[in-house]
Amino acid sequence: MDASSPTLLRCDAKRLWKTLEASGEIGRVGERGLRRLALSDEDRMMRDLFVGWANEAGCEVAVDEVGNIFARRSGLDPELPLVAIGSHLDSTICGGRYDGILGVLAGLEIVRVLNDAKSKTRRGIEIVCWTDEEGARFSRSMMGSSAFAGIYEVPSVLGAVDKNNKSFGVELERIGYAGKLPAGQRKFDSYFELHIEQGPILDASDKDAGIVYGSYEVRGRRFIFRGETAHVGPTPMDMRHNTLAAAGRAIAAIDDIGWRQHESGGKTTVARIECHPNLYGIIPDRVEIGVDFRHPDGNCMAEMSRGIDQAVRDAAARAQVTCEMADQWSFGGFSFANELVSLLRSTATEMDLPYLDMRSQAGHDAYSIAKVTPTVMIFTPCKDGITHNFAEDIEMERTMPGVDLLLNAVVKRADR
Amino acid sequence: MDASSPTLLRCDAKRLWKTLEASGEIGRVGERGLRRLALSDEDRMMRDLFVGWANEAGCEVAVDEVGNIFARRSGLDPELPLVAIGSHLDSTICGGRYDGILGVLAGLEIVRVLNDAKSKTRRGIEIVCWTDEEGARFSRSMMGSSAFAGIYEVPSVLGAVDKNNKSFGVELERIGYAGKLPAGQRKFDSYFELHIEQGPILDASDKDAGIVYGSYEVRGRRFIFRGETAHVGPTPMDMRHNTLAAAGRAIAAIDDIGWRQHESGGKTTVARIECHPNLYGIIPDRVEIGVDFRHPDGNCMAEMSRGIDQAVRDAAARAQVTCEMADQWSFGGFSFANELVSLLRSTATEMDLPYLDMRSQAGHDAYSIAKVTPTVMIFTPCKDGITHNFAEDIEMERTMPGVDLLLNAVVKRADR
Repeated sequence: MDASSPTLLRCDAKRLWKTLEASGEIGRVGERGLRRLALSDEDRMMRDLFVGWANEAGCEVAVDEVGNIFARRSGLDPELPLVAIGSHLDSTICGGRYDGILGVLAGLEIVRVLNDAKSKTRRGIEIVCWTDEEGARFSRSMMGSSAFAGIYEVPSVLGAVDKNNKSFGVELERIGYAGKLPAGQRKFDSYFELHIEQGPILDASDKDAGIVYGSYEVRGRRFIFRGETAHVGPTPMDMRHNTLAAAGRAIAAIDDIGWRQHESGGKTTVARIECHPNLYGIIPDRVEIGVDFRHPDGNCMAEMSRGIDQAVRDAAARAQVTCEMADQWSFGGFSFANELVSLLRSTATEMDLPYLDMRSQAGHDAYSIAKVTPTVMIFTPCKDGITHNFAEDIEMERTMPGVDLLLNAVVKRADR
Repeated sequence: MDASSPTLLRCDAKRLWKTLEASGEIGRVGERGLRRLALSDEDRMMRDLFVGWANEAGCEVAVDEVGNIFARRSGLDPELPLVAIGSHLDSTICGGRYDGILGVLAGLEIVRVLNDAKSKTRRGIEIVCWTDEEGARFSRSMMGSSAFAGIYEVPSVLGAVDKNNKSFGVELERIGYAGKLPAGQRKFDSYFELHIEQGPILDASDKDAGIVYGSYEVRGRRFIFRGETAHVGPTPMDMRHNTLAAAGRAIAAIDDIGWRQHESGGKTTVARIECHPNLYGIIPDRVEIGVDFRHPDGNCMAEMSRGIDQAVRDAAARAQVTCEMADQWSFGGFSFANELVSLLRSTATEMDLPYLDMRSQAGHDAYSIAKVTPTVMIFTPCKDGITHNFAEDIEMERTMPGVDLLLNAVVKRADR
């Protein structure tokens, strides 16, 4: 395709929707829910389906050692690094049919549109399926993209175990996607990821496309409370070292902190708790909680951070137990590549497409890839912002503007 | 033995201690902790050891269909119902070496003392090991004694599953203790249970024996909160239906209720929590908590009950989730057999043994057996009231008075 071509391309909405519907059958729960955990049989079936489609579309498929799938449509100049379009095929435990896979199938649709037009881009285009974005099975998320970007070491990814003590590496072999390609060996010119917003902003607005110029910072903490087992019957309140009482107080206080920052966009969540021995009749001697907190403003973030640590200490003191911050992490809080954000904005303007400048609040594979490749994201609306839920839904009419923006921007970049 | 004999008998403390020490090796954790879960390999080994000892002491051993073990020393009149002495061999997950087994081995010591004295009681004496008192594996407690007393139906006991989906019935077969005797077929004249107090009262007093004339009422509730999964990142605080936030608030409020009743002997405990899907990044849509509350006074109990229900409703409303009381139960709150309490008091007086009149705060097999047989309990001190804990400990000097009280009272009753 000639880079100076003024023609704006459009995807075939019905064809894209047909692939989405077919994919939504693999791991379907109920009417429209999805459970397609990483490296499960459903993941294998979905991978097989995608690889079949990619081959039919003339792509050359390769798989790396952590199971990331690369489907290449070569360009006119095989010496030039490729433009990548990617996302993930796995879902969380109570997920929907669009989170992740929409970005992959949008890439497939773009390849099909270019095939139909019999046009070749200067740089090749590669569709990427990153392994295990959700972290719903092996506890850490963005496993494949993080291994690709060198954030996680490959052995630590392959050695991760699920709650049944099955390892990522053995499960990857089992489903037939333990590839030969070393992770991270492929170098891209740029990386584009289209994703449903997973929040209510775009859906509530009168715009259909979000140009994601950066990400909110996300911070996490894992706290462990340690006390003493005792019989719940005869042990008086003041002789107890009750870790679940401490955790309950901490959870309530942390929720309050989120509410205090709600108006300015802050959030706190305790989504995980482990209680030992978790038996009637025995005061629990060990409780672990996982805390997530987010705020668009750095000062508020710091204030929340101090507040949470203090709340946990206070709760522990009240229940006569100890507390330890066993782990802390953060991600996000960065800007995507300026040149790609500009490309998306100018392309949208050229297309007469109203858009929203946004920051991402959820983590994405793009967060990992941004560390090694110029990266940008496009958001499309999801109904009422509901996601990670069987009720997740999107509308074709409000999705296609973002997909067409992706198509035209990728082609421009590939023809560069 | 002649019922009019004025001789007071004494147990052999060192011999009893030797059996306790041997038993404490089976399932030992660390220096002096114990983990001997019901129907585990350790339970089997302990049962085998006990049966060997009982056979050596000339007892005839029988096992019923839920694994309760009966070791009989026959009396002069085989037509008369027997006097039973019992407790349990299993421990909780972080248990001690005395909770339960002391009462069984005290029974064995009594048989040995009578053997040494070559004396026969009019009624026979039977030592009973009730299966799975702790409920640390198959979720309900006092399984064997409740099946014996007809509180639980035998199929529901045999069909109970542990967290690895192993059933009570299959595990009982596996360890070789699925007996032929129908549960509850044996009829006793009376049932005596000696147990460590599992609370601090006796230990802090200047008396060594507690005569347990009744039990506190114990009430339990299981609440289920139901909400909606959602992504923790982009979902604003006010759009959430976060069940773990509800549970945390409920746990904190329930702990407060216990503290308000602390001075008058009240207690509240949440010892169990189950959170789904319990994954980072996903707001939990289902949390279940198990609540236990106790108070010596009925009015306070009713007040606590109302307070807890209200606290749960308030917490659910605050977190925009629903709550349901899925289950409620109560036990205790009754008096043991007057005639046996009187017998213990008069025997203690005869022995010049100072004692404390007490009510039990923990549940015991005696609670079940009291429904079908005249029953009484004796408490002995445990250090600092610590139990259901690896640090559980007792002193020989402060234990033997209770054991000797049991011996003399049982002999009197058996000679009746």
